[in-house]
Formats: sequence, structure tokens, C-alpha cells
Amino acid sequence: MYVIIVYDIEVERIDAVRHILKQYLTWIQNSVFEGEITEGHLEELGFKLFELIEKEKDSIIVYSINNPSWIKKRVWGKEKNMTTNIL
Amino acid sequence: MYVIIVYDIEVERIDAVRHILKQYLTWIQNSVFEGEITEGHLEELGFKLFELIEKEKDSIIVYSINNPSWIKKRVWGKEKNMTTNIL
Repeated sequence: MYVIIVYDIEVERIDAVRHILKQYLTWIQNSVFEGEITEGHLEELGFKLFELIEKEKDSIIVYSINNPSWIKKRVWGKEKNMTTNIL
Repeated sequence: MYVIIVYDIEVERIDAVRHILKQYLTWIQNSVFEGEITEGHLEELGFKLFELIEKEKDSIIVYSINNPSWIKKRVWGKEKNMTTNIL
């Protein structure tokens, strides 16, 4: 399964959230991670994030698709390579 | 066609970018818009944003899919309703 995860997290928890997401997915823009993941690992990721976030303040959206070739991706402007950023 | 647009824009241009995106799509999270759009309108949107952004600093990613039912969407934490925010 392929996922795109976008998040809006309060600043004091953002590094911790990214640290967890980086264990499973690729950081591709400031608030976006992407990648191939199993249903089991996505569930595990969800549990870890649920322990961390404040459900009344933070928001994480998970878009998943069985076949990534069904999604077309265009980049307008700078193609950021967040993988070089150190957390 | 259904699109998910995520962006990482310098603060001085963010309101203008959102103002344009709001003409075509629904604001669903801080840096995310979504919605049904024709290929022609997406092109038009692209032209407008290209006039505005700095291509060395700003980044906009457009994910598009022919059939939105191919995407599963989950929300972890708060389901933000950005449509009530005034630009």
C-alpha cells in the first residue's frame, strides 16, 4: 500500500512526530511524508502517533492507495529534498 | 479528476497562494487543499500560482487521481475545518 501523510501539529510536538514518521516513510515536503507501507506497519505507526499527539489540537491525514501508479504527481516550484535535513 | 495539493510557501506569499487555491478547491488542513477539478482548471490554477511563487523557495505538490474512490482517507486527531477560516 502507498500512503501520503500530511500533518498539522503544534510546534512543541513536531520534531517527535517527524522522528516517528521517518522510521516508516520518506519526508518529501515540510508537512508531508510519502511511501510504501504495509497495513501492519501503518497500524503500528498510528499507535505511536496516537500516544504522542493531542487529539484536540493536532491533525494527521493519511491518504492510502493500493497502487501508486494510479496517482500522478506534479511539483510546481522547488522540489525539496527533506531527506537531507537532520532531525 | 480529483486532486490533493500540499504546499510549503514562504510566509509573505502564503495568504495569496491560499486565496487562489480557495477559488478552485477546499481547504482541509493548514497546508492542504483537496477537491474535484477539471484538467483545464488545474492548468489555469497552475498558471496563476506560477506567477506568484518563487520557484527557488516555494514548493507545491499536486497529487491527482482519476477516481477518488481509489483513495482511502483516515484522519488521526482533530478533523480541522479550514473552510470557516477567513482569508
